[in-house]
Amino acid sequence: MIVFGSTGSIGVNALKLAALKNIKISALACGENIKLLNQQIQAFKPQFVAIKNAKDKHLVKHDKVFIGQTGLEEILQNCQDDFLLNAIVGFAGLKSTIKAKELGKKIALANKESLVVAGNFLKGAKIIPVDSEHSALNFLLQDKQNIKKLYITASGGAFRKSKIKDLKNVTPKDALKHPNWAMGAKITIDSATMVNKLFEIIEAYHLYDFKDIDALIEPKSIIHAMCEFRNGATTAYFSKADMKLAISEAIFSTHETQILDPIDFVKLSSLKFYEISTRKYPVFKLKDWLLKEPHLGVIINAANEVGVENFLNYKGSFLDISKTIFKALDHFGVPKISSIEEVFEYDDKTRKYLKGV
Amino acid sequence: MIVFGSTGSIGVNALKLAALKNIKISALACGENIKLLNQQIQAFKPQFVAIKNAKDKHLVKHDKVFIGQTGLEEILQNCQDDFLLNAIVGFAGLKSTIKAKELGKKIALANKESLVVAGNFLKGAKIIPVDSEHSALNFLLQDKQNIKKLYITASGGAFRKSKIKDLKNVTPKDALKHPNWAMGAKITIDSATMVNKLFEIIEAYHLYDFKDIDALIEPKSIIHAMCEFRNGATTAYFSKADMKLAISEAIFSTHETQILDPIDFVKLSSLKFYEISTRKYPVFKLKDWLLKEPHLGVIINAANEVGVENFLNYKGSFLDISKTIFKALDHFGVPKISSIEEVFEYDDKTRKYLKGV
Repeated sequence: MIVFGSTGSIGVNALKLAALKNIKISALACGENIKLLNQQIQAFKPQFVAIKNAKDKHLVKHDKVFIGQTGLEEILQNCQDDFLLNAIVGFAGLKSTIKAKELGKKIALANKESLVVAGNFLKGAKIIPVDSEHSALNFLLQDKQNIKKLYITASGGAFRKSKIKDLKNVTPKDALKHPNWAMGAKITIDSATMVNKLFEIIEAYHLYDFKDIDALIEPKSIIHAMCEFRNGATTAYFSKADMKLAISEAIFSTHETQILDPIDFVKLSSLKFYEISTRKYPVFKLKDWLLKEPHLGVIINAANEVGVENFLNYKGSFLDISKTIFKALDHFGVPKISSIEEVFEYDDKTRKYLKGV
Repeated sequence: MIVFGSTGSIGVNALKLAALKNIKISALACGENIKLLNQQIQAFKPQFVAIKNAKDKHLVKHDKVFIGQTGLEEILQNCQDDFLLNAIVGFAGLKSTIKAKELGKKIALANKESLVVAGNFLKGAKIIPVDSEHSALNFLLQDKQNIKKLYITASGGAFRKSKIKDLKNVTPKDALKHPNWAMGAKITIDSATMVNKLFEIIEAYHLYDFKDIDALIEPKSIIHAMCEFRNGATTAYFSKADMKLAISEAIFSTHETQILDPIDFVKLSSLKFYEISTRKYPVFKLKDWLLKEPHLGVIINAANEVGVENFLNYKGSFLDISKTIFKALDHFGVPKISSIEEVFEYDDKTRKYLKGV
């Protein structure tokens, strides 16, 4: 397995699981956490390694170190291994997904932005989702017949219990306190704004070709997805909120190993579902439009990345994130995109517009 | 379709569904509700009819009326239709199941007692369960791989909220008030004692060849069954508490029709699971023993039928039902049964012993 994003929370969990099953690791790529990368190199002896910045190259204890996006693509090109775990964060992960698709490699995809912005151009890719909701859907959809509607669940994020008026003054530190999941910064903020759920809905559309998809808040994050059938029955997928299960479903070919403790239903306090308030989570208003016009994904994603970065750097407020998204949509409307190159152009245009460049 | 037990709640629902899908009804059989039977004859024009007692024959508006158990078997023998819905209540349904199996007919089985008392002798029968829990399991088990444990749910019955000390003086009228399901008298009492859940567990064992099966109380009866997988995930099947769905799953070959409204998860008040207290429901202590020694089913069932009949006729108390079961088990222990004939012998011996004959 080739692991891009090896020092993030998905990467670290995937390597734990790979060790458990003696899965050979052919390549590792990370950003700036060279200390952890060196430990991983020692443990897994990969053939290739990539890092973000050339300046760190001398620190890496490996003799085949590639640099930046070009380096990632060189690894994909040169490495015989036909299985990529793409756990790069944000739009930056897209090029690796495209390259892996071109090379016919199987992709365990944690980089949901690849589908959000360019799902239409990834048809035919061998994608296995690394998202607890989609892992659940994958499982539930084994027999697709007579399914009418898909549901994914949302925890409600860091501010589920906050009042709308209090969201004005929340800090990055507040937003990074996710109640259920231990995840990276970007996705934790995206959970607090509900952008993450919006992305997961369009991800599900691209993966499973359903348009009738909705999300509900289930505060325990113990139910991950549901399938509603034409006859009136609904199936649901329960598991503890630990990404190891979704990762193992994506990277193992057999699933007989116990990854998590099963749910003890008697010990579970009561389960309850809530609608997603579009007053509290304004971006969720975009769901139906996005499902109708999936190309909006590139605008929404670029604007969101700008908004989240500003927020994390104290250059914008939490509520500015959704305002930034709506501002970009007001300006660009539905983009006319007919090639993957235009995805990159629109991503760039959106960022430049928002930064006033 | 041949419908035995056509005037009971399962039979009535099945006929409604048959009308919906224009399923031909070849034969109808009931006990003593001749008025409803005549309406059904007029609506469905069956080739054959059977009733319990010869004395009612002149009241039936049909020229081919068969009588009693022999009559049922004659219908199965003479009717070309290869699909039987067996919704007869209690041990009395077993002979029809056996006959239908011999004739190679497909059996939609609402008569769970057939499996409880003689499951070992029904291997190879083409059985589709008509029980909401087993319908759910059927659905969830489509890909049996890597399932570790099955759960079915219980509503808790009429006395879920009662204190143990108050069970001493409950009347048949109290016990017949089932909180969630509109069902016949026998099964409603069996729900209140938890005998029904014990039976459903052994039914699931015979249907699906699992020994690791448990039941949990889910007071809404909106989750019917769950499958726990080796990896730690659990799937669950939700539907409104209405037998039409389980019946339609059993009698329709395709399942694209809406039978019930889907669950509105947001409107659902909170879901909670409880262990089944063996202090409150003493018969549930028998679960592991019964799974180890399925032949105990015949003793437990006969004793239960005696106990329930006594209770409904004010000849015994509610708590006497379980006492009757334990008394019979103390006397007979594990029966040595190696043929279906011995099932009938043990049934008879148990009833005679308990009645002091």
